[in-house]
Amino acid sequence: MSISMHSASVPVFVRMLGNLLAWLDKAEAHAAARKFDTSVLLASRLAPDMLNFTKQIQIGCDAAKFGVARLAGLEAPKFEDNETTLDELRARIKKTIDYVQSVPAAQIDGTEDKDITVPRRDGPMVIKGEPYLKHFVMANFYFHVTTAYALLRHNGVDLGKSDYLGALKQ
Amino acid sequence: MSISMHSASVPVFVRMLGNLLAWLDKAEAHAAARKFDTSVLLASRLAPDMLNFTKQIQIGCDAAKFGVARLAGLEAPKFEDNETTLDELRARIKKTIDYVQSVPAAQIDGTEDKDITVPRRDGPMVIKGEPYLKHFVMANFYFHVTTAYALLRHNGVDLGKSDYLGALKQ
Repeated sequence: MSISMHSASVPVFVRMLGNLLAWLDKAEAHAAARKFDTSVLLASRLAPDMLNFTKQIQIGCDAAKFGVARLAGLEAPKFEDNETTLDELRARIKKTIDYVQSVPAAQIDGTEDKDITVPRRDGPMVIKGEPYLKHFVMANFYFHVTTAYALLRHNGVDLGKSDYLGALKQ
Repeated sequence: MSISMHSASVPVFVRMLGNLLAWLDKAEAHAAARKFDTSVLLASRLAPDMLNFTKQIQIGCDAAKFGVARLAGLEAPKFEDNETTLDELRARIKKTIDYVQSVPAAQIDGTEDKDITVPRRDGPMVIKGEPYLKHFVMANFYFHVTTAYALLRHNGVDLGKSDYLGALKQ
């Protein structure tokens, strides 16, 4: 019994992206109750030189999508980054969940020592599968999902830690 | 080759807590340059009903400490939650790094199916080691560390994604 590369990644993405969908429902309810357009939330930032809410969602989804695709040796599906509404962001999240679930576990498992090439601003980085997943993909994924949560909290959406974590099955 | 419970947890804590120490250095430099007391940062919040920066650090450290202790079946060392300065927060982070590194890997490995009892507000939760680590400990840890980062960014500290992720060895 040990954790596989699939079990360390896909179930975490699916769970947190599902939680994120529930936060969007609360965000929509908050905007309706306070009578402002949800586009205000989508454009919101924690600092002028940070990415807005929409980009946090897009990049968080891409962390999961590219993480799974690169480990599995697949070309990731292209998503256009053209979401402008909450419903379009929901669709982006659902497409991402569907994609990461569509990749067979066997294609992700056993990639701990595989060389993964990651395109970066300063040229491609080659890194083994396990540190790639733990220190790059998961950190990036949690960064963007948590920043999205922080933006909603900062804007008054009624969320708490149990929304962040989701229900824990015993 | 697969990921062990130890390799999925301790190296991630040590790495991100080390990154957090570097963010504190930038926070201190920012406060000095702008001539405000760092206690302002320590008391800052993203929303009136969110915990302040000091608590985010304390609870983030505790997520790592209790995660390791519960998996290993050890009593966690008690930290008093009495930090009031940046230097005291640094010491808290370093104590946490030292503690999680002090627990032998063999005591954490193999705990995937172990029943872990987690005290929670509504009574103790019993959960298997692997979901405990992935969906409770890591999510909580990333939540508080990322919220601390968000607070610093929101307050103008000069940080970027490479500070968040830290250097990636190839």
